[in-house]
Amino acid sequence: MKSVAEQIALIERGVVDFHSKEELAKKLTRSLETGTPLIVKAGFDPTAPDLHLGHTVLVQKMRHFQQLGHSVHFLIGDFTGLIGDPSGKSETRPPLTPEDVKRNAETYKEQIFKILDPEKTKVVFNSTWLGTLTSFDMIRLASELTVARMLEREDFKKRFEANRPISIHEFLYPLIQGYDSVAMKADVELGGTDQLFNLLMGRDLQRSRGLEPQVVLTVPLLEGLDGVNKMSKSLGNYIGIYESAGSIFGKVMSISDDLMFRYYELLSDLSMAEIENMKCQIGKGELHPKVAKVQLAKEIVTRFHSAIAADEAERAFEQVFSRHELPDVIDEVKIATTETDLWIPKLLVSAGLVKSTSDGRRMIQQHAVSIDGERISDVNGTVPATGSVLVKVGKRKFCRISFV
Amino acid sequence: MKSVAEQIALIERGVVDFHSKEELAKKLTRSLETGTPLIVKAGFDPTAPDLHLGHTVLVQKMRHFQQLGHSVHFLIGDFTGLIGDPSGKSETRPPLTPEDVKRNAETYKEQIFKILDPEKTKVVFNSTWLGTLTSFDMIRLASELTVARMLEREDFKKRFEANRPISIHEFLYPLIQGYDSVAMKADVELGGTDQLFNLLMGRDLQRSRGLEPQVVLTVPLLEGLDGVNKMSKSLGNYIGIYESAGSIFGKVMSISDDLMFRYYELLSDLSMAEIENMKCQIGKGELHPKVAKVQLAKEIVTRFHSAIAADEAERAFEQVFSRHELPDVIDEVKIATTETDLWIPKLLVSAGLVKSTSDGRRMIQQHAVSIDGERISDVNGTVPATGSVLVKVGKRKFCRISFV
Repeated sequence: MKSVAEQIALIERGVVDFHSKEELAKKLTRSLETGTPLIVKAGFDPTAPDLHLGHTVLVQKMRHFQQLGHSVHFLIGDFTGLIGDPSGKSETRPPLTPEDVKRNAETYKEQIFKILDPEKTKVVFNSTWLGTLTSFDMIRLASELTVARMLEREDFKKRFEANRPISIHEFLYPLIQGYDSVAMKADVELGGTDQLFNLLMGRDLQRSRGLEPQVVLTVPLLEGLDGVNKMSKSLGNYIGIYESAGSIFGKVMSISDDLMFRYYELLSDLSMAEIENMKCQIGKGELHPKVAKVQLAKEIVTRFHSAIAADEAERAFEQVFSRHELPDVIDEVKIATTETDLWIPKLLVSAGLVKSTSDGRRMIQQHAVSIDGERISDVNGTVPATGSVLVKVGKRKFCRISFV
Repeated sequence: MKSVAEQIALIERGVVDFHSKEELAKKLTRSLETGTPLIVKAGFDPTAPDLHLGHTVLVQKMRHFQQLGHSVHFLIGDFTGLIGDPSGKSETRPPLTPEDVKRNAETYKEQIFKILDPEKTKVVFNSTWLGTLTSFDMIRLASELTVARMLEREDFKKRFEANRPISIHEFLYPLIQGYDSVAMKADVELGGTDQLFNLLMGRDLQRSRGLEPQVVLTVPLLEGLDGVNKMSKSLGNYIGIYESAGSIFGKVMSISDDLMFRYYELLSDLSMAEIENMKCQIGKGELHPKVAKVQLAKEIVTRFHSAIAADEAERAFEQVFSRHELPDVIDEVKIATTETDLWIPKLLVSAGLVKSTSDGRRMIQQHAVSIDGERISDVNGTVPATGSVLVKVGKRKFCRISFV
């Protein structure tokens, strides 16, 4: 096992909130002395998962702990999922059946095991312990926090001040998440920065039960392809981990150099020293940024597909883009549609890349159209109207089309 | 059974809030048609009960329903009592054991059956149904109300605005009280005016479950002997139902004429017509107010002791006060003490009625001291330092002493 200092150096990479480094050092020291790995908790929604790179920042952090020999617990918060949204306000949260939960868990595993080591990952369900609580226990739990304190949570505060309704059961959920840490005897809990309040709740509840409080670490929300907004499905600025090798490769190639280093820090397995070195070389003009970007794109494609797929994606990309540099600015176009698939010539018209669908058909016949690095040859071809695609027509016309 | 109109006339006597008369008329009509009595609910704390006249206003209203042939359910809210105050903020609310609850229930019965007919009163405990709820059920219940709505409750609102802490479990209690009405299928719920929010909660929860909402009636908080503040132990302005016949009689005789009519309305079994008639006679000078007051005092003593005790109390009172009128204003003195019993000569000094304890002993030897209408003859005698006592020394010196 690595020394405490070495472990902390890896653990704090890219981290935003850290409560607290001193406590973690104490836990790591004891872990080294006794040979007992730390219990590292990260909780996930039980709804059907379809992860994008933004979600994997957290999984990458779990991987760090796993690489250091600690025990990573992937918690599926199925308890509240089995209840659904009892206020009936959200139609998108009907109660899940135990079968749903089981199926979603399998989908989760399939996705996270592209990053985590299945042998070293414990998948747990909070219904295991929460399902045995009585109404008495729930009331006791509710007594551990005040209304005022709960309204300090940023999203509750905003909703309260804007007179948007907050159901009382929503106040119970952070307590339940905190109780999970008690039940799991978590040493560390990881989450996004938006989870900080709930993560600290675990510390409070453990402390009030005489347990050593967990260390809380938050990872940032990853910026999307635009480099501004956080990566999300609804903004279309994401890279889904189930996307094709060509699509992932093309999307990574489209990001800015600044964002590239952000992705390196949060997503890559390169050490920070290697990344700094690369940055330095680029600064001196010894390395072209595109080379670094290709390396990142290949690392990510390799993670979700394979090294062979990464090589192929690179080759296809170079071929299509004819070894020309990508322009610095790529036009962004949003297309609102209710269709699930769009006929490519029509898409080209909508994006202003060609004048008519017959013009579009001709460009395809001339092998002058490529989408996400794949040359299009079928004039009757369609693309799924989800997320975004990088379209090239001729040698100079590039456009990123997002579907909304 | 009486007609709907006759029933409503008795039911609305002294009532403050009424939601709603139309709904009650509908329920009463159906009750008459089907011969099914209404289920009338009133809830009480499970803590050791020691009722005073203020509490009996509600019990008197239960009695009205009983007289009309309805089914009165005396609900002991033991569920929350068994939990205690889980926030640990109130040291006076340790969890009750089931034995405590059983014992307190017996004490309740002993007291309320001085007013209610034991044969027609159903004593129920909400732990019966609430104890079977799961943590799931509790969360579902919590989802039925918003934080904003709960903060409309007057006492929560005040505490929130004054930055005094409200534990989240306190938000669950009104919901629990509302759920009781669902479980009991209550047609009517009675309570004090300070309970209005919680009573209306029962209507909401019944409605959301497709049940006909209960009718809600509130009775006022009874003014204490001072005619200004609500009757309460801590203010010492109360008549406990376990006080001696002489004490109750003396205290009723000490109230103002206005307050007398208030007590008649809220506590007496005389009809409103009879009370109006009495008021009219006094107005015309055909009846002395003291006579009306004696009649009220005797009715109340009869209720909690017996008709014989009432007669004796009247005789003793007349004898001590030598058929003189009580002065319009009786001095009020508050004595703060940690003693449980006070030596009478010392009490007289404290109240400024005699100059020294030897002066007090002499007055007792001269049969010149009476307390609550009972002449004192033992110079070593003591009085319990609880509630208040009406003390007379000589022919003109009166003083009401409250122990705080």
